[in-house]
Amino acid sequence: MRLALIEAEEIVAACQKAGTALGKALSIAVVDAGGFLLVVKRSDGARPLTPNIAIAKAYSAAVMERPTKMLKPWAESNPGFFASLSTMGAQPIVATEGGVTVKRDGEILGGLGISGGTGDEDQQVCDEVLGSLGYELQFQAWGGARKDG
Amino acid sequence: MRLALIEAEEIVAACQKAGTALGKALSIAVVDAGGFLLVVKRSDGARPLTPNIAIAKAYSAAVMERPTKMLKPWAESNPGFFASLSTMGAQPIVATEGGVTVKRDGEILGGLGISGGTGDEDQQVCDEVLGSLGYELQFQAWGGARKDG
Amino acid sequence: MRLALIEAEEIVAACQKAGTALGKALSIAVVDAGGFLLVVKRSDGARPLTPNIAIAKAYSAAVMERPTKMLKPWAESNPGFFASLSTMGAQPIVATEGGVTVKRDGEILGGLGISGGTGDEDQQVCDEVLGSLGYELQFQAWGGARKDG
Amino acid sequence: MRLALIEAEEIVAACQKAGTALGKALSIAVVDAGGFLLVVKRSDGARPLTPNIAIAKAYSAAVMERPTKMLKPWAESNPGFFASLSTMGAQPIVATEGGVTVKRDGEILGGLGISGGTGDEDQQVCDEVLGSLGYELQFQAWGGARKDG
Repeated sequence: MRLALIEAEEIVAACQKAGTALGKALSIAVVDAGGFLLVVKRSDGARPLTPNIAIAKAYSAAVMERPTKMLKPWAESNPGFFASLSTMGAQPIVATEGGVTVKRDGEILGGLGISGGTGDEDQQVCDEVLGSLGYELQFQAWGGARKDG
Repeated sequence: MRLALIEAEEIVAACQKAGTALGKALSIAVVDAGGFLLVVKRSDGARPLTPNIAIAKAYSAAVMERPTKMLKPWAESNPGFFASLSTMGAQPIVATEGGVTVKRDGEILGGLGISGGTGDEDQQVCDEVLGSLGYELQFQAWGGARKDG
Repeated sequence: MRLALIEAEEIVAACQKAGTALGKALSIAVVDAGGFLLVVKRSDGARPLTPNIAIAKAYSAAVMERPTKMLKPWAESNPGFFASLSTMGAQPIVATEGGVTVKRDGEILGGLGISGGTGDEDQQVCDEVLGSLGYELQFQAWGGARKDG
Repeated sequence: MRLALIEAEEIVAACQKAGTALGKALSIAVVDAGGFLLVVKRSDGARPLTPNIAIAKAYSAAVMERPTKMLKPWAESNPGFFASLSTMGAQPIVATEGGVTVKRDGEILGGLGISGGTGDEDQQVCDEVLGSLGYELQFQAWGGARKDG
């Protein structure tokens, strides 16, 4: 099961609408389950590097298989290791608000990343949009139960 | 003068339509004059790294201020130097078909990059779309004379 | 609207004069709105890496669209994330005194970075010089509302 | 013996004047004997990455202790090794026209790099300017005679 372009576009359009309601110029990225880009958009007025930040959040949420804010305790408890981890993928792994895994029927389909608002605003838009479009928002702190568990 | 999101989206939509007509799944990127991302889209079926290739083409066309195919003689005559040049920006500088500078009224507004077709197809879509939307397609091999020159 | 070389040189010359008045050997950098170099100078006696520090400050102030000291709370509250952010552009993103966005008539034209004095001195020279030359010194912590918002 | 800022500025000003005479918008960089930046300028109309190219040429001419065009046979005869070499310093090592070592009284003081013209034009400006200002233009292909030689 792959996220279709039309589904990624639906997510991005809903995030843009939420950004307009907040009065914030957002950059939004959606990646697939492997962390590869599907859609990126920078709203008028969003700063130049915000698309890159959104991509890093989306990538991290996809390949770490949980929202980026769930990575914060790990990053804070072992910052040196996390800094190394951050260089191991194709994009930086970031531990902050605003990146949420795209999951449906228990399957990880990709990641959504938002930059341009406060951390809380970026997070709120991710949660509201993915929730309203029927994606799941429950994630385990660690990498899934054992197959035989 | 900045390229508005709606203008970048118009370019991308026209490229997607051209890709459909060709029967090719394209990835398309538009960046601003500084090479920062505005819009990226990967069509269903386009390979995972094609958005990155499209971004590199768009970036190169924007900051080198001429289409990426115009960089080929330079890259071929001095490949080692060109490999070094490729590391000097925020994205790789690529010398190939499929990246065209976005220019209007003599001003460079950004870059368009396409990946997913043959080089000739990627190039054709860039040229047709930018031409049909009223952007300029004439570029100089060398930088302009000094203003006071 | 681009910053002309003569304008960048005027900024640098005023900074050098201010450094002489302070008795400090300064390195000074001015970049354009995309963060690309316009002018760099290292005063006699300034340490070897000070031009690079000045460039990073100027770049950060240009592409983050606010003075580098305004980035300090962000960097302090989430140092790991900020370290990742720092790798996303063409130059390091730095959160410290001595980098100020060059803005006129509400438009961001580039960035000025200074290194060689204390942080407070570097900052003071940026502010005094840009203020005396008629550039704006008011910046928002967050990106503007969407044009259609 | 160090190159003073006023001497570096004199070199850059002469190069700018030569660029105007050629009708080419040049970027010019001067570095010290360790390859650290002294002065960089981008003329109005020169492309965004030209200062970076000029810096790489100046750096290479300084730390390799001979003009960058003298590196071409080496780069061509062993391109893989040269690509590795190019990553070993603080800037890329480039083998092309337009970078000349700044030498006086047998002592290497730094490097001059120019980008924005054709390779031959960049080279011509380096040679003419350094020659007219009394710097030496004779270099050995290899790293100097043995001390006892």
